[in-house]
Amino acid sequence: MTSSLDPGLASRLKRTGPDSLGLLPAVVQQHDTGEVLMLGWMDEEALQRTLTTGRATYWSRSRQEYWVKGDTSGHVQHVREVRLDCDGDTLLLRVDQVGAACHTGDHTCFDADLLPLGTGPVTP
Amino acid sequence: MTSSLDPGLASRLKRTGPDSLGLLPAVVQQHDTGEVLMLGWMDEEALQRTLTTGRATYWSRSRQEYWVKGDTSGHVQHVREVRLDCDGDTLLLRVDQVGAACHTGDHTCFDADLLPLGTGPVTP
Repeated sequence: MTSSLDPGLASRLKRTGPDSLGLLPAVVQQHDTGEVLMLGWMDEEALQRTLTTGRATYWSRSRQEYWVKGDTSGHVQHVREVRLDCDGDTLLLRVDQVGAACHTGDHTCFDADLLPLGTGPVTP
Repeated sequence: MTSSLDPGLASRLKRTGPDSLGLLPAVVQQHDTGEVLMLGWMDEEALQRTLTTGRATYWSRSRQEYWVKGDTSGHVQHVREVRLDCDGDTLLLRVDQVGAACHTGDHTCFDADLLPLGTGPVTP
């Protein structure tokens, strides 16, 4: 596919691969401020563990194992609410995040990289 | 994989399939209230169109075509900000949503389906 997206930006995009098959994306939001903290991935078992323990639990695509958020870092997510979207293909977790949500130490995984708007030819 | 997830809930989950390969999930948030409205999918071209036109544009996995949110419904998303996450695999759009975000007429795609917490055996 041809695209006029800036090549520097395009090279930074990591496209969804086969390791996401069979999983559901889970959007994670701080329950009181509304900040979007991160996006994780779940299978049925991760969802079941999350619902029953109240601790956000994901499937790590890179490590191919379950991970309870915060077990290593201490940056636990206490789950307040879990919602399924209209199509049944996306989850929304409203959590109380302890410490930084991002493994980089940033408060959220979206803090660092604001993309430029309006950088291409504008359709009249 | 065995899971003790409620079978009724499990049957409603639509797992990520091959039609998501090569795309990036885009979390869409109302810029002022912080509400998570929906999750869409983008390829490079959809991202480029979104950045340059300021109108949220996605790749429809079901129709296999680009769709400018609101072109049919009038429920346009004016884009205020686009962010890429720490891993480069997820986008966050902060938008000003006109009308309902969800095709069902709900305000967001997450309004209708709150899952029960604490419904299984609790680990002591």
